[in-house]
Amino acid sequence: MARYEIYVTYKKGIFDPPGATAKRALDNLGYAGIEDVKIGKYIQMTGDMSEATVREMCEKLLANPVIEDFRIETVEEA
Amino acid sequence: MARYEIYVTYKKGIFDPPGATAKRALDNLGYAGIEDVKIGKYIQMTGDMSEATVREMCEKLLANPVIEDFRIETVEEA
Repeated sequence: MARYEIYVTYKKGIFDPPGATAKRALDNLGYAGIEDVKIGKYIQMTGDMSEATVREMCEKLLANPVIEDFRIETVEEA
Repeated sequence: MARYEIYVTYKKGIFDPPGATAKRALDNLGYAGIEDVKIGKYIQMTGDMSEATVREMCEKLLANPVIEDFRIETVEEA
């Protein structure tokens, strides 16, 4: 059984709506000094598949390659 | 300038709708052998605030402590 962790983030320069909303809300709550907030996805996946297959899943479904980058970490090998 | 990475995940036993949807979609695309998919949030934050303040932000706004756990990693100290 393999275990992967995938980090999906907006590409540099692409507007990040959840991050911008969280930053504004935190500013409004009175927190000072926040420079930047970015919100991406943290995906944990287990199963009998290779890292190459997980990469394909990311490209096809889990990330939007037009606006998002992703990074796969293999926590346990298949 | 401090830099933090925050991982927000559903608590054990709490239903994870985006994870369940992704698993079903991947099954439908023909990928075999997937055991489990969980989708949480990956938050990157920079600014002049302490880890204790970031913890408070998580409890108040960034995570829902009723159904979610969070883990903070300090990438760069303030």
